Amino acid sequence: MTVTAAKGFEAAGVVAGLKSTGKPDVAVVVNRGPAKVGAAVFTSNRAKANPILWSQQAVSDGVVEAVVLNSGGANCFTGTFGFQTTHQTAEKAAELLGVSSGDILVCSTGLIGTGDEIFRAKVLDGVEKGVAALSADGGAAAASAIMTTDTVSKTAVRERDGWTIGGMAKGAGMLAPGLATMLVVITTDAVLDAADADAHLRHATHVSFDRLDSDGCMSTNDQVTLLASGASGVVPDPEAFRAALTAVCIELAEKLQGDAEGASHDITIEVRHAASESDAVEVGRSVARNNLFKAAIFGNDPNWGRVLAAIGTTQADFDPYEVDVWMNGVRVCTDGGPDAPREDVDLTPRATHVVIDLKSGEATVRILTNDLTHDYVHENSAYSS
Amino acid sequence: MTVTAAKGFEAAGVVAGLKSTGKPDVAVVVNRGPAKVGAAVFTSNRAKANPILWSQQAVSDGVVEAVVLNSGGANCFTGTFGFQTTHQTAEKAAELLGVSSGDILVCSTGLIGTGDEIFRAKVLDGVEKGVAALSADGGAAAASAIMTTDTVSKTAVRERDGWTIGGMAKGAGMLAPGLATMLVVITTDAVLDAADADAHLRHATHVSFDRLDSDGCMSTNDQVTLLASGASGVVPDPEAFRAALTAVCIELAEKLQGDAEGASHDITIEVRHAASESDAVEVGRSVARNNLFKAAIFGNDPNWGRVLAAIGTTQADFDPYEVDVWMNGVRVCTDGGPDAPREDVDLTPRATHVVIDLKSGEATVRILTNDLTHDYVHENSAYSS
Repeated sequence: MTVTAAKGFEAAGVVAGLKSTGKPDVAVVVNRGPAKVGAAVFTSNRAKANPILWSQQAVSDGVVEAVVLNSGGANCFTGTFGFQTTHQTAEKAAELLGVSSGDILVCSTGLIGTGDEIFRAKVLDGVEKGVAALSADGGAAAASAIMTTDTVSKTAVRERDGWTIGGMAKGAGMLAPGLATMLVVITTDAVLDAADADAHLRHATHVSFDRLDSDGCMSTNDQVTLLASGASGVVPDPEAFRAALTAVCIELAEKLQGDAEGASHDITIEVRHAASESDAVEVGRSVARNNLFKAAIFGNDPNWGRVLAAIGTTQADFDPYEVDVWMNGVRVCTDGGPDAPREDVDLTPRATHVVIDLKSGEATVRILTNDLTHDYVHENSAYSS
Repeated sequence: MTVTAAKGFEAAGVVAGLKSTGKPDVAVVVNRGPAKVGAAVFTSNRAKANPILWSQQAVSDGVVEAVVLNSGGANCFTGTFGFQTTHQTAEKAAELLGVSSGDILVCSTGLIGTGDEIFRAKVLDGVEKGVAALSADGGAAAASAIMTTDTVSKTAVRERDGWTIGGMAKGAGMLAPGLATMLVVITTDAVLDAADADAHLRHATHVSFDRLDSDGCMSTNDQVTLLASGASGVVPDPEAFRAALTAVCIELAEKLQGDAEGASHDITIEVRHAASESDAVEVGRSVARNNLFKAAIFGNDPNWGRVLAAIGTTQADFDPYEVDVWMNGVRVCTDGGPDAPREDVDLTPRATHVVIDLKSGEATVRILTNDLTHDYVHENSAYSS
């Protein structure tokens, strides 16, 4: 039940006419519990959409009553008018819910530059419909309403001793580093204070969404929000809560990877024995962003030379002539030289596992990415037309 | 006549059997002039091929007698045996030419990991044939022999007051920052000392090949070599020489761009009014490497939102909400908001001009790149099979 799996939340997903397909395009998630704790992390892109600019302010006091999300338009680079649209969206929701507009977060996704009078009118109409449709089992509808080029809605739930965490995510393109083009809302009925919620969320996103790098492109609209209602009455063990939240985030990240635009392989790049975690991330990301490597995987070609060429561009501490590379369990490169023949490697399964052993330390990191395909090019050359 | 346009040079391109097509695959360029000045710049990739490791040492004294180049195998990550192959290549050429092997540069291009006994035997055979075929009008043959996926050979010549510069280049994929997968040899009959040759070459490559970023992938084998024979007897005006050398490098860089694997658009990204040259390069390169932008151009979509999303990931000094963007002469974005409608922009010509005005200073830089196409994916998913 996604964002309504935890007690104290209501949600809705409604049709506001923003999508030309007529599918649901506005979601509302409301915290009805005794506590109104909220935390959020945002895109690190300096080009931030209006909803990001608004939400960063609104969440800063750690109090969040509700989140309004729309697909069908990013409201990014739409000027003062666009910012006013976000402001009016929050005010409209606040008025209908009887709360302060400063406690409403707003998220938008879709084409950059979209945010005119028609967009505004439809979003405001969607808020009205969404609040009217709120229900304690509206999580699935909300998860559908935030989809753009997603082919399936993405949800994850973990139930623990007396408390629950549930989340929804959207995102299929422009998936990259400091978060992806993705909107994520996670709710919990655990009792948390704002500082803990923020710390747990930052930890969980750091090792999940921040390690998903599908196409190297960073969005202007990314937002991951955690709402805690306290409705379970249970104060969770901090370690257990962090572990469960991280599991939800990793599951959602893997679902984003699995539905990435045009992809035919889900590639896990595991960097082993790096001198540091940051070295491991840098090495993994250099491979995840290498178009030649990604095209090779599309072609089921275990081209380890492209792996070494990619990691050679990093500043990480290792010797290229000591590196081993495995692909789907076969060691194709040992000490920077050829090992098993390419014929030994079966890259036909969608799940692809690349291991890069740097032999330089103890850090291990997994970076998630996808291959570069004809369909990726096709979808992204035709997106706005 | 490429590398034999300047006086004092002989060249050859011969069939050594490295290419399965049976086309020429070994080139030799020899300096027969009174001076044996050489300078070279190399890939900044830490994963360097054996010929790079060899040539870096060989050129360090500023004396170069000849360059041997092969296509059909990169001799990269081929271990000690591969390095010995490079060493033997230089020794073979030195013996046949009656010079020191330490004055022979070696360049290789092709698949990484290729460099077994058969490769070695063919290369050595090619050196023998190449030296036997040397002639003062062998430049065109040499330019053909270094081609890999290139569809045309690339050459450029400038004649000035009593001296000449001529060059050849190959490269069509893995074209990126600290040079591309490209091999370039430039010759001149001007009288230069080694320090000047090195300084002129570094300047010229910095503003030409270093600003070509076709697919963001950096090669293990890039090398640009300048040979000066002194055969004209003319000491050139330093500024005039630098300008002519830069013009040759820019022309060759544009020819590499124009023949990039699978590309359907040659995109010039002009960054204007940046606070510094390095800011301008960072901004231009962020766009050149953005797959969503590159796919949009392939689809003839003037998607300026992807330009702003790309430049927002940089650390350059500018305000995203003051940026203007032009595409093929039409201002599609003003002060970070929509301007002319997309219908006004004609992106059907192969030559595409994107201007990004940062309004932050006086620096202007042009970065050359290509679009991301079905053919790029196809060529690079099938390359090694």
